Amino acid sequence: MQEHLDESLAELSRYAAQPSVAAQNLGMEACADLVAGMLRARGFSVETVPTAGFPVVLAERAGRSDRTLLIYNHYDVQPPEPLELWTDPPFTPTLRDGRLYGRGVSDDKGHLTARLLAIDALLSRADLPCRIKFVIEGEEEIGSVHLPEFVRQNRERLAGDACLWEFGYVDHREVPLQYAGLRGICYVELSVETATRDVHSGIGGSIFPNAAWRLTWALGTLKGTDERVRIPGFYDPVRPPTARDRELMAQAPDTADDYRARYGVKEFLRGMIGGVELRIAEVFEPTCTLCGLTAGYQGPGSKTVLPARASAKVDFRLVPDMTPDLVLKQLRAHLDAEGFSDVRVQFLGGNPAGRTDPDDPFIRLVSKTAEPVYGVPMQVVPMVGGSGPNHAFIHDLGVAVATAGFGNPDTRAHAPDENLRVDLYLKHAKHVARLIQAFAEETAPGPSIQPRSKRAKA
Amino acid sequence: MQEHLDESLAELSRYAAQPSVAAQNLGMEACADLVAGMLRARGFSVETVPTAGFPVVLAERAGRSDRTLLIYNHYDVQPPEPLELWTDPPFTPTLRDGRLYGRGVSDDKGHLTARLLAIDALLSRADLPCRIKFVIEGEEEIGSVHLPEFVRQNRERLAGDACLWEFGYVDHREVPLQYAGLRGICYVELSVETATRDVHSGIGGSIFPNAAWRLTWALGTLKGTDERVRIPGFYDPVRPPTARDRELMAQAPDTADDYRARYGVKEFLRGMIGGVELRIAEVFEPTCTLCGLTAGYQGPGSKTVLPARASAKVDFRLVPDMTPDLVLKQLRAHLDAEGFSDVRVQFLGGNPAGRTDPDDPFIRLVSKTAEPVYGVPMQVVPMVGGSGPNHAFIHDLGVAVATAGFGNPDTRAHAPDENLRVDLYLKHAKHVARLIQAFAEETAPGPSIQPRSKRAKA
Repeated sequence: MQEHLDESLAELSRYAAQPSVAAQNLGMEACADLVAGMLRARGFSVETVPTAGFPVVLAERAGRSDRTLLIYNHYDVQPPEPLELWTDPPFTPTLRDGRLYGRGVSDDKGHLTARLLAIDALLSRADLPCRIKFVIEGEEEIGSVHLPEFVRQNRERLAGDACLWEFGYVDHREVPLQYAGLRGICYVELSVETATRDVHSGIGGSIFPNAAWRLTWALGTLKGTDERVRIPGFYDPVRPPTARDRELMAQAPDTADDYRARYGVKEFLRGMIGGVELRIAEVFEPTCTLCGLTAGYQGPGSKTVLPARASAKVDFRLVPDMTPDLVLKQLRAHLDAEGFSDVRVQFLGGNPAGRTDPDDPFIRLVSKTAEPVYGVPMQVVPMVGGSGPNHAFIHDLGVAVATAGFGNPDTRAHAPDENLRVDLYLKHAKHVARLIQAFAEETAPGPSIQPRSKRAKA
Repeated sequence: MQEHLDESLAELSRYAAQPSVAAQNLGMEACADLVAGMLRARGFSVETVPTAGFPVVLAERAGRSDRTLLIYNHYDVQPPEPLELWTDPPFTPTLRDGRLYGRGVSDDKGHLTARLLAIDALLSRADLPCRIKFVIEGEEEIGSVHLPEFVRQNRERLAGDACLWEFGYVDHREVPLQYAGLRGICYVELSVETATRDVHSGIGGSIFPNAAWRLTWALGTLKGTDERVRIPGFYDPVRPPTARDRELMAQAPDTADDYRARYGVKEFLRGMIGGVELRIAEVFEPTCTLCGLTAGYQGPGSKTVLPARASAKVDFRLVPDMTPDLVLKQLRAHLDAEGFSDVRVQFLGGNPAGRTDPDDPFIRLVSKTAEPVYGVPMQVVPMVGGSGPNHAFIHDLGVAVATAGFGNPDTRAHAPDENLRVDLYLKHAKHVARLIQAFAEETAPGPSIQPRSKRAKA
């Protein structure tokens, strides 16, 4: 596979050079076409299926066994801003010191090309060992707005025996991690308008309503300095980690020192200093994160203006069994009850949390096949803090979902200087080739297609 | 004067086409040079005096009488943003339907050129009737950071008998208003930094401090939904309006309907609906106005980021006898006491409030000389909501300060589509010519140079 690594990185560089920022509707169609072409070139039958948002690229190719492996990826990327913090331009992939830098190289364009590198290696020897179906959406970074409905409406077409997820990480000890669950998300924009245009603050300061103040006060009712979300009922559906979850979280690597060094954070919330307590809080608690604030004058120096409009981006991370629908209802009711019916809530996307049993046979298979590549099997972590639409795959398609990938501790997903380590990229391709081979050879369907009701409680 | 109006507007258009945004350090030196040239062309001796910030242009020309009229203007303008709301580009002055549009045409570049039009008219007949000294600073829109010290250090050079202020307004009844006092201002930027870079919100949401939350909570302690500033001691130095103030405010025009129509404001704060109550609240109360909020992602759609930095622009308007120094001390102590010692306070400029006795002879002279031009004398209003460095002139130079100008109810100072009405521009020039003539003929110095201690209580 090594001998085709440069070609694969060149393919990735072309792919990552094509901007595809869903949030900004930038380059999406061109990027979907590019993906479709990459799969067609491998003999997959490809269809770019429209949705109410950005299209989903479906690609399928039969193999020697009857088993079907689903692979989920996405072709959209996070906005590249703030641009001034990138060493090289975000859409000019650049190789430097064993890393490839660029928006999307890690999250998630490189994961597709590494998997294609694995598939190329398998195809160079024979036909595919099993049937493979790619589901490649264009809205992951904006909350997979239309994917759950798409999955529900295409259950038969997407039928499979297990699903390999878009991403994965190798930790600071070089141990690959297997995340068996993802938190959900409910992303909203809150906005207030108090006038049709900005007012000179000398006139309005003591007599006009101020959109920035209204927003500030409304936000203050959502969460206090104790970091508890104040929306009534918010915590009601939360299920605490199980004994097995706690056991696995206790074995997971400690990231506290790494976080302190990497992000320059002096202290964690609520006096936490690290260890299993911090790791459990990181992934088993729901959040209410202010992702952005905008109002009035934001340039250098002063401008004496009273803003007519103000808005905030707010990201709720959800744990089982919270749902975006319920959070939206609770949020609206709370704002109204607190006297903020003037604050508009716009839903920008979301998914419930999705979990696969950390002891599921497919999870075990993905972990085990990593060992010849990494020298150790994957370490299973029951839940990760990030989000994705795995809930629809687990609950509507009834498949186990396993993660694997080459993210590194300094991979900077969603941030300037996003990058991948070339050595880990190659390892991921090797791991995926072994996984597909081993998966094809498993004849018994096993618990991977256990009934939905059982998996739902995983 | 009419015959030179077009030339004057052409001069103003050249002046306003030169950007001079102090907050953004844009075009300041070139603009100061332009102003110096405009005054030299009228036979003034001009000096551009450096300060620790932007230079002050001083210009002086002797006249027939011994009296000296100071005229205060400023060559800096507000930032033009948001650019997309301008009909024409802000630095391309455009004449349309009897109005000239452009950043600074009203605040305050046009006031200088209208006054030069008056001076040209006087010079075309003879020498100036009295000595005139222009003080034209470049930091008015950023709180006149260095002017008070400049005035203190140049007391003798700036000695005069009275001062005509930079601006003035004609109300919706076409009655010119005379504002005998200005509120003070204390403009600060509050900022928080919780990490060295932004964090993926999936990782950080439940364990990392969030700069945007810290800022939101800190702001929430400054003022509550009852609109009362919560900083201890903030209201202690406030002096309520006198009986004479109330009498004059009762006679002032009612602006409530105009505000509702112009700004689309549905209701005023604290249930006020208009009348003298609203007018007194507008100018005799101190304020705490959020002028801007910035944190994290502010583009379209969603970005799941936990901001490392957040900042707010806050404008406190001050009434007698509040001072920026005291407010800064109280603000810092309050934030510390509330647990927000991580919130940095940066002072961006300010001045105490400055008042001239509304019955001062110079105020009366300015009002009276308006009558032949406007058909009515100016209506004296004891205080206006805006700010400026008049405190230094009143208290350090011991002069009365009177306002007069051509601002109209839709003049949009500090906002997109700032404009002047050409008819009012010409009236202002005519008024100033009459004022200079009448001022020169007043031989007795009168109470305009009454001792500082007395004026300080005006």
